[in-house]
Amino acid sequence: VKRISTGIEAAELGDYEHFMLKEIYEQPRALAATFTRDGAGELDESAFGAEAMEIFDRTRAVQIVACGTSYHAGMVARYWLEELAGIPCQVEVASEFRYRKRVQHPDTLLVTVSQSGETADTLAALRHAAPGEFIASLVIANVDNSSLVRESDLAFLTRAGPEIGVASTKAFTTQLVAFLMLTVVLGRRRGMTPEKQQDLLQQLHSLPDLVTATLALDSQIEKVAEAFIQKHHALFLGRGIEYPIAMEGALKLKEISYIHAEAYPAGELKHGPLALVDADMPVVAVAPTDELLDKLKSNLEEVRSRGGELYVFADRNAGFTDEPGVHVLSMPHAPEALNPIIYTVALQLLAYHVALQKGTDVDKPRNLAKSVTVE
Amino acid sequence: VKRISTGIEAAELGDYEHFMLKEIYEQPRALAATFTRDGAGELDESAFGAEAMEIFDRTRAVQIVACGTSYHAGMVARYWLEELAGIPCQVEVASEFRYRKRVQHPDTLLVTVSQSGETADTLAALRHAAPGEFIASLVIANVDNSSLVRESDLAFLTRAGPEIGVASTKAFTTQLVAFLMLTVVLGRRRGMTPEKQQDLLQQLHSLPDLVTATLALDSQIEKVAEAFIQKHHALFLGRGIEYPIAMEGALKLKEISYIHAEAYPAGELKHGPLALVDADMPVVAVAPTDELLDKLKSNLEEVRSRGGELYVFADRNAGFTDEPGVHVLSMPHAPEALNPIIYTVALQLLAYHVALQKGTDVDKPRNLAKSVTVE
Repeated sequence: VKRISTGIEAAELGDYEHFMLKEIYEQPRALAATFTRDGAGELDESAFGAEAMEIFDRTRAVQIVACGTSYHAGMVARYWLEELAGIPCQVEVASEFRYRKRVQHPDTLLVTVSQSGETADTLAALRHAAPGEFIASLVIANVDNSSLVRESDLAFLTRAGPEIGVASTKAFTTQLVAFLMLTVVLGRRRGMTPEKQQDLLQQLHSLPDLVTATLALDSQIEKVAEAFIQKHHALFLGRGIEYPIAMEGALKLKEISYIHAEAYPAGELKHGPLALVDADMPVVAVAPTDELLDKLKSNLEEVRSRGGELYVFADRNAGFTDEPGVHVLSMPHAPEALNPIIYTVALQLLAYHVALQKGTDVDKPRNLAKSVTVE
Repeated sequence: VKRISTGIEAAELGDYEHFMLKEIYEQPRALAATFTRDGAGELDESAFGAEAMEIFDRTRAVQIVACGTSYHAGMVARYWLEELAGIPCQVEVASEFRYRKRVQHPDTLLVTVSQSGETADTLAALRHAAPGEFIASLVIANVDNSSLVRESDLAFLTRAGPEIGVASTKAFTTQLVAFLMLTVVLGRRRGMTPEKQQDLLQQLHSLPDLVTATLALDSQIEKVAEAFIQKHHALFLGRGIEYPIAMEGALKLKEISYIHAEAYPAGELKHGPLALVDADMPVVAVAPTDELLDKLKSNLEEVRSRGGELYVFADRNAGFTDEPGVHVLSMPHAPEALNPIIYTVALQLLAYHVALQKGTDVDKPRNLAKSVTVE
């Protein structure tokens, strides 16, 4: 199916064949814009709203609520908030959260995440929060004047610009930048040293270049994509903060290529999904540097005879090389906190190239809406 | 592949063709034995260990850690502990938990779950807990004298009897009984009324008969299974406490039939997986009674043209009937808290019959070990 472009869309597309590809390539700019704002001072807390300083002073825990890709952003944020800021954080799918009787920490900040600011289940979760359940609400959204922005106490607007492709790309990575900024502002109230704060800010400064370096792998990733075109299944594995990135990578592939891709925390492989792996189910590992890879290789040795193949996205400094059944894509070396963002960009390109080569409608996958405004 | 039974195994199998089927049918007895113990008074707290009363008095939060099927038991328990006992509860996969820097509530009880008591990642999580991170540890296990039992402060032994089939069945449902008992003993310290306690205990008394009534649906479920034999994919949906049951149902099907079954919280369907649904991906809904079904039907209307079929396991009192594209399996009416257990039994039978008809090795699925003692 070829997409018929109208004149206006074609103009907006510029040199790109699809909005999704355009939006993937806009990420260095979108990330920088989200971080630096309009030339305002860096990490000016008022970017979160007029009352932000006072609310953050009282915040003792964070509850994140979102759907789909935005939920994955929340899952990544949980690692940052707990590990770097030392603040307890829970994350829940909005359609689950709103129907459940919950027990919250005292002084919990409710954080919703939604590109459009109109996601129905997320909005319902905000509206149905029990009186006194949260000290305040913050939304991370890409669209100003949206319902979630209007109805939340605080709002952080990502500067991704309009996102047209149904499969979210730049909205997701800019949400991650917003969460890293939130990590710093909450962390500085809980013993994060000025050096550590400064370090994270400098890392954010280096992010656009690292994303550009990742985009330069486009043709290599296009080549990896060829291995997936004839497949009907894929397994995405990650550990810790890379697990939600594996989920996001699987979701992208699902959404636009209709390959049944599923993500698992790497350690769960031997508790079930290993029985499935064969030549029709390639395994993708998001494994920057840790010891995960050795364990994965030994887990997967048993399925080599069934044709199981492993594709590893790993830090180029880790020195991994191809071997029979193991294909390595060497990623730019990045500070640990930024890995979720740059590995996402690589997996976006993987999904894009698989879909392109399969000939599916990249920008408008069947049965999915850009903004899910029904429950 | 037909399983070759040795003489000893054949004797133990009795009239059953596989250990898995035998163990599914042993559940009424195993559940009753786990609940009533050896004729001891019901909900004698010493079933959890000599120091149980004192430790439960000090418990202000619960952190559950487990792998695979036992992790699903923990996910169900979270709903009971938060909704019925009003105690904050978090659940995490052991291989993730142990590698993460965490922020715990004060006075948190660590609860591990493992059929064998030897699951390597779960044991490592217990051993690597930070000093002072937890007030005490409790394990729910089926094997006495196992490492987790020896090394935990408290232990609750399920009375499932030996489980031979690699895909866990009676161990899982008896773990759920253990968690319901834990819900009552922690709940009575947090305002659960004597009436509510008595009500839950009486529900437990009714459980074996409800499971027997579910087992009586065997031939109906066998008929449903026929629709899955030629499929390569399946989607399992549930909401709230039925979401982990959807996960467990998908895992069973994966493990023994090698069908790529994936579970989603029902509300997330429209945030991605809906693009995948077609004639090769039947959708299974665990939807006892709630309003979920209407929303699901309208979500799935769009994929009817691609051959998408919905199989609903629902309370017979809900009055759902078959319609084009929607197949209803009517389950016994049960108290709400018991639904996770009886719906699990139905999904165990579904997985069993699909595997049997596909001719896979039901009791020893490829590449999976009964007890995962490596990391």
